[in-house]
Amino acid sequence: MNFKETYDQKRTDVEHALEKLMLRPDGRLADHIKAMRYSLFAGGKRVRPVLCIAASQTIDPAIEPVMTVACAFECIHTYSLIHDDLPAMDNDDLRRGKPTNHKVFGEAEAILAGDGLLTYAFELLSDPHVSSRIFPENQLRLIRIIAQAAGSLGMVGGQAIDMDSEGKEISFDTLQYIHSRKTGALITASVQAGAICANASKDQFAALTCYGEKIGLAFQIVDDLLNVEGTTEQLGKSAGSDAELEKATYPAYFGVETSRSKAHEAISAAKDILDIFGGNAVFLRELADYILTRKK
Amino acid sequence: MNFKETYDQKRTDVEHALEKLMLRPDGRLADHIKAMRYSLFAGGKRVRPVLCIAASQTIDPAIEPVMTVACAFECIHTYSLIHDDLPAMDNDDLRRGKPTNHKVFGEAEAILAGDGLLTYAFELLSDPHVSSRIFPENQLRLIRIIAQAAGSLGMVGGQAIDMDSEGKEISFDTLQYIHSRKTGALITASVQAGAICANASKDQFAALTCYGEKIGLAFQIVDDLLNVEGTTEQLGKSAGSDAELEKATYPAYFGVETSRSKAHEAISAAKDILDIFGGNAVFLRELADYILTRKK
Repeated sequence: MNFKETYDQKRTDVEHALEKLMLRPDGRLADHIKAMRYSLFAGGKRVRPVLCIAASQTIDPAIEPVMTVACAFECIHTYSLIHDDLPAMDNDDLRRGKPTNHKVFGEAEAILAGDGLLTYAFELLSDPHVSSRIFPENQLRLIRIIAQAAGSLGMVGGQAIDMDSEGKEISFDTLQYIHSRKTGALITASVQAGAICANASKDQFAALTCYGEKIGLAFQIVDDLLNVEGTTEQLGKSAGSDAELEKATYPAYFGVETSRSKAHEAISAAKDILDIFGGNAVFLRELADYILTRKK
Repeated sequence: MNFKETYDQKRTDVEHALEKLMLRPDGRLADHIKAMRYSLFAGGKRVRPVLCIAASQTIDPAIEPVMTVACAFECIHTYSLIHDDLPAMDNDDLRRGKPTNHKVFGEAEAILAGDGLLTYAFELLSDPHVSSRIFPENQLRLIRIIAQAAGSLGMVGGQAIDMDSEGKEISFDTLQYIHSRKTGALITASVQAGAICANASKDQFAALTCYGEKIGLAFQIVDDLLNVEGTTEQLGKSAGSDAELEKATYPAYFGVETSRSKAHEAISAAKDILDIFGGNAVFLRELADYILTRKK
């Protein structure tokens, strides 16, 4: 299989696992669950779950991936999109080519859908049957890494500083701070979680962490570039919205060309780090390239 | 020490532990952390952490309570208040006699303060140094119980159905559904968590679970009664707001007298269940009475 086929296979596996995990028994909650499902199944690329699975398979190509852990990342990522799109936050009407959650279900339901997805992630992560391979100590470690990446010193904090910085002149330090936390932290954690699910050695864990940080940075720079260069139709969300909100972005700070070369550098460094895995890292290398060249 | 002194001692211990846990190192996040602290230290009664500690001590009076776990409940409870008060939800301006979080910090910051507190709870709960006494398996079990109680099939779901039910005729079933999830689930979980922290036997765990369910019900009925009978000054939040929003409440369904006797019944049943703990349950019995007679 070529890269695209392998990616699509993993993505399909994630879709099926998510479908199964979202079968919740309570009829009264139909509307609430519908709101969660609406954003969860809105055509996401499933980058974080795929990264989690791929990181495990880079350590051990024959491993059965821990889909419950992989899917927890999609729940956290989706909650963050729902809350970020709210009128009080980025006030976005479109996401992946569809009306945002609050546009369809109202603000109250959107806030609760986000809260429900975030909390569900931790229910999934603490499932005692998640995998017979993971020791409880490691499962706890995994939960802690994810909570830290998603929380105030990670993603939530990145969004808080991003909101504070709208319309302000910010330093490069602050730009890096926002990017590494708002997007980078959860991407890195997804790779780290995959490493832990495969009982990674210290060296393997360190290498994959560094890989995650580099591709996380590139991912956000590319996001910034697409927001400048893409059309609303291509992106499925409002193009040019960053400039409109005077958001802190790489292109706003460095211009388009320098931003692009910084993304290239990060991806090149990410691939170099994978050398210790030899041929087992083919997919992660290609995934790094995909992050650089993606069109949405 | 009498009940009030014992309660206040435990509450003070919780305040100190929370203060220590909220010392976060990041200067950039000053505003975000200020928003979290504002609601976390707004004079809450700390019922859930005290219940968690007291449940442990009912099993083993000499036990060192696991403050990190107890404090996680206050983080989750506080997040739920911040989000419930938002304009899109209950639109409350006052909470514990002070302006609500979004009134002081704005809606975006309030949403993020809630998200940060919820996520922080799971960071605390997965702390590997939480207690040498808790086996990792039990710590995972504890996380799962709390995530389930706080999530879509628990507190978040209760709030979702409560929002849906505003202004509608609802059945007693639905009223029970809302109460047991919106308030009852997290109160029960706090007692269960305390039981797990003390390595409870199956029987002890079952008895404390049942106790938690009964006092959780009484707690919510009393809340409903206070909303009808209390003044805004007494409550520190808007009195009569339930009726204004046509909320599903016990007094709206049964009238004040029947509601009061139902709360009495629940508390009496809760105390009976504690018989298996003999003299070790004195504090939990008195706490049940306090829940019935509290004025705010």
